[in-house]
Amino acid sequence: MSSGHNPQECKPEVVVSTSEELVISADPVHPANLICELCRNFYSLGWVTGTGGGISIRHEDHVFIAPSGVQKERIQPSDIFVLDRVTRTQLRRPLKPLKQSACTPLFYNAYDLRDAGACIHTHSQHAVMVTLLWPGKEFRCSHLEMIKGMRIKGTEKAMSYLDTLVIPIIENTPDEEDLREGMEQAMRDYPDAPAVLVRRHGTYSWGKDWEQAKCQAECLDYLLEVAVKMKLAGMETTVEAGVAP
Amino acid sequence: MSSGHNPQECKPEVVVSTSEELVISADPVHPANLICELCRNFYSLGWVTGTGGGISIRHEDHVFIAPSGVQKERIQPSDIFVLDRVTRTQLRRPLKPLKQSACTPLFYNAYDLRDAGACIHTHSQHAVMVTLLWPGKEFRCSHLEMIKGMRIKGTEKAMSYLDTLVIPIIENTPDEEDLREGMEQAMRDYPDAPAVLVRRHGTYSWGKDWEQAKCQAECLDYLLEVAVKMKLAGMETTVEAGVAP
Amino acid sequence: MSSGHNPQECKPEVVVSTSEELVISADPVHPANLICELCRNFYSLGWVTGTGGGISIRHEDHVFIAPSGVQKERIQPSDIFVLDRVTRTQLRRPLKPLKQSACTPLFYNAYDLRDAGACIHTHSQHAVMVTLLWPGKEFRCSHLEMIKGMRIKGTEKAMSYLDTLVIPIIENTPDEEDLREGMEQAMRDYPDAPAVLVRRHGTYSWGKDWEQAKCQAECLDYLLEVAVKMKLAGMETTVEAGVAP
Amino acid sequence: MSSGHNPQECKPEVVVSTSEELVISADPVHPANLICELCRNFYSLGWVTGTGGGISIRHEDHVFIAPSGVQKERIQPSDIFVLDRVTRTQLRRPLKPLKQSACTPLFYNAYDLRDAGACIHTHSQHAVMVTLLWPGKEFRCSHLEMIKGMRIKGTEKAMSYLDTLVIPIIENTPDEEDLREGMEQAMRDYPDAPAVLVRRHGTYSWGKDWEQAKCQAECLDYLLEVAVKMKLAGMETTVEAGVAP
Repeated sequence: MSSGHNPQECKPEVVVSTSEELVISADPVHPANLICELCRNFYSLGWVTGTGGGISIRHEDHVFIAPSGVQKERIQPSDIFVLDRVTRTQLRRPLKPLKQSACTPLFYNAYDLRDAGACIHTHSQHAVMVTLLWPGKEFRCSHLEMIKGMRIKGTEKAMSYLDTLVIPIIENTPDEEDLREGMEQAMRDYPDAPAVLVRRHGTYSWGKDWEQAKCQAECLDYLLEVAVKMKLAGMETTVEAGVAP
Repeated sequence: MSSGHNPQECKPEVVVSTSEELVISADPVHPANLICELCRNFYSLGWVTGTGGGISIRHEDHVFIAPSGVQKERIQPSDIFVLDRVTRTQLRRPLKPLKQSACTPLFYNAYDLRDAGACIHTHSQHAVMVTLLWPGKEFRCSHLEMIKGMRIKGTEKAMSYLDTLVIPIIENTPDEEDLREGMEQAMRDYPDAPAVLVRRHGTYSWGKDWEQAKCQAECLDYLLEVAVKMKLAGMETTVEAGVAP
Repeated sequence: MSSGHNPQECKPEVVVSTSEELVISADPVHPANLICELCRNFYSLGWVTGTGGGISIRHEDHVFIAPSGVQKERIQPSDIFVLDRVTRTQLRRPLKPLKQSACTPLFYNAYDLRDAGACIHTHSQHAVMVTLLWPGKEFRCSHLEMIKGMRIKGTEKAMSYLDTLVIPIIENTPDEEDLREGMEQAMRDYPDAPAVLVRRHGTYSWGKDWEQAKCQAECLDYLLEVAVKMKLAGMETTVEAGVAP
Repeated sequence: MSSGHNPQECKPEVVVSTSEELVISADPVHPANLICELCRNFYSLGWVTGTGGGISIRHEDHVFIAPSGVQKERIQPSDIFVLDRVTRTQLRRPLKPLKQSACTPLFYNAYDLRDAGACIHTHSQHAVMVTLLWPGKEFRCSHLEMIKGMRIKGTEKAMSYLDTLVIPIIENTPDEEDLREGMEQAMRDYPDAPAVLVRRHGTYSWGKDWEQAKCQAECLDYLLEVAVKMKLAGMETTVEAGVAP
């Protein structure tokens, strides 16, 4: 929701195509179509209201990114930006005067540090409540079936029911893109973590492809919701090793 | 939900057209189409159940207003009233014997005092709970990402994560139109406020256009919902200056 | 959800038509179409899950009633029973071997004692919680805007913001039709009440027509939900006369 | 969400058809169509997010089962497995490289021990919370109208309002298929129980056919949700015999 400082945005506009070729497709699982459909889905889940949150999908060397500050449930494929995976330069921008999502550097953390194929950012209230109820640097839970829906690093093998899910919590910053460094540090400090929570803000999670990213975002949100309920009911969300849950 | 006292309603009916010209359009973002679509959206969010709440959109010199006491999720474009922006006279009324929304003078507060392009009234339960849990004259919250979705005065630049959101709370009155004066006074006393809460009743918020109004209504509702959760969990919704949140 | 004891059901079946004439219509507000549409709406609100709850609509001398024990969100117009308003005999029954709703005598309380045009029965969890948190014979709330959506007796003039809403609570019985007497007594003891709550079960409310019945059912459910939240937060739901709310 | 150990899966693949004959039908209540439709319904109820949960339907000698680890709300009829009721061998498998649901042996518990026609597995958060708030081996509730939507054994006559619903709770295991034995034991120990809860995981419930299974899954979830609310409000969910509720 704030202005983007991504250096690539300063490149001369003449090199950027506004052609719809890269974003218009009859294939329902084309990234540009998926972003629109999933944003409508996420809106109904309360993850992206008020233009907050979003999703980026990578397909081979192309990174598809939604515009900044628009109603996520109303995005059209023609509104989508396409970036080069490596150089981050815009290969395609919308004809409308839209700005590329300020989450871009955060999404690239997932692409660069985890080789993700998609990254989801939510403003889930469950995430906000968890970061308020867990004032420290991480959230932990264990012995919940839905942990099995999370993957080591977000992109590798599925976690076991016997694993403890540990998600780092970073402090929020006034500008979204300034979260980049904190998120990168958290991902390096917690190399197995499949997501990062941002205090008083929301979640970043990712997966090998859009299906895994969506599955993990749903499992994470479910776990955060249950964790809040447990905490408010006076229960611990982790069980000590050797103690039957 | 009560009878309207707007003096314009007493004008001889002969001058008011019932033609559909001003409200029937194939353009999905025509104000009459938008009011119907957004009311269905707001119904699913629980903002306008039981014929409560609504939205008014201004387009140049025309103000589009829904009828009073009807199911908001079932409004048709042909049910919409069109008023002159300045004189408030009806330029168009429905053929059906419908009454103009009793919220009209409240919507005009947003048009007159903030030069708004749209105004949304909700009966959100989160708003009712906030006005019960904050018995004083204002609601405050800070250090929540979604504050960045709110704008100074509702129509100017976006708030920062470091700003404290302050929304005045006015007392409810038996007749909706009698809220006009209290709302105006609150808007003058809190010139930067992007919304007004009505005790035991709901919200009024607005924006430069329907997109900003909708975005801010969603962000406001999100913040009210989180604030209730924080308060019930024993947490403060504001952080003192100089204290890390 | 239990067997019906209505004496009319014992009449010889030969006099009952299974013709679709009374229930098949292209008019979207034909009672048989409305019952199907509203049941889908009520399902999404959580009022009629698990085959519970329902709605009956009266049109002149015909009473339209859904079958018993079926998924309410999947009812088709051809599944609807049509009864004579006065004699309660079936004028039309479905070709399928369905039983008339066990709520029939309860719906008739609204038709007979309030001259209602429609009656809605919900299994709303908010109603169940209110009857648990208010263990006495009535529920009261005041000074909530949505009270203005309720009508004296359910069929007369709208209540004022300054009125106290009083809804009698009756005890549940093992068989739904055995609620008839308790509901009738409550309606006579509370002649102005627009609804009856059934302990650990749900609501019955009604209106002059389906639109008023739906509006009041929504306002009632909203008020019950807010009342539960207020009670659990330690607040009273009524304000003493002369004390500013 | 884990690999299946069902011995039938080791049979040579050559005998398994990938023909669509058994799963493609224009009939909306064909089991393959129903599984897809109901999974979309269950997704919106929060029962099967993150690829969790599911439903199996039996039609005569054919058992229809969804694939493992896929988004339940996006299943297509062509993704469905068909097994022989008795031998459990795959009669049909999808052309795509999908694995049969790890819930298969659990669904067969319902088919074998209760002669069910359909079995539903949810990851309902209400179930998780009940198993946390009731740390013993069973959950009990009584005097709630929705108990009448549950059936003795899940397949026989409907319960009465005066009956106490008793649902066994089994401990979760790291692999879903390892729940088979615990679930079977619970079904033998509680021969009248219409469902089994799995601690920190979810529910298994069933019915004579898909309609009864769906109805009971909805009633069960409603009861679990109300039970959590009652417990957190300090109320008991059972009433002692002879004591007026």
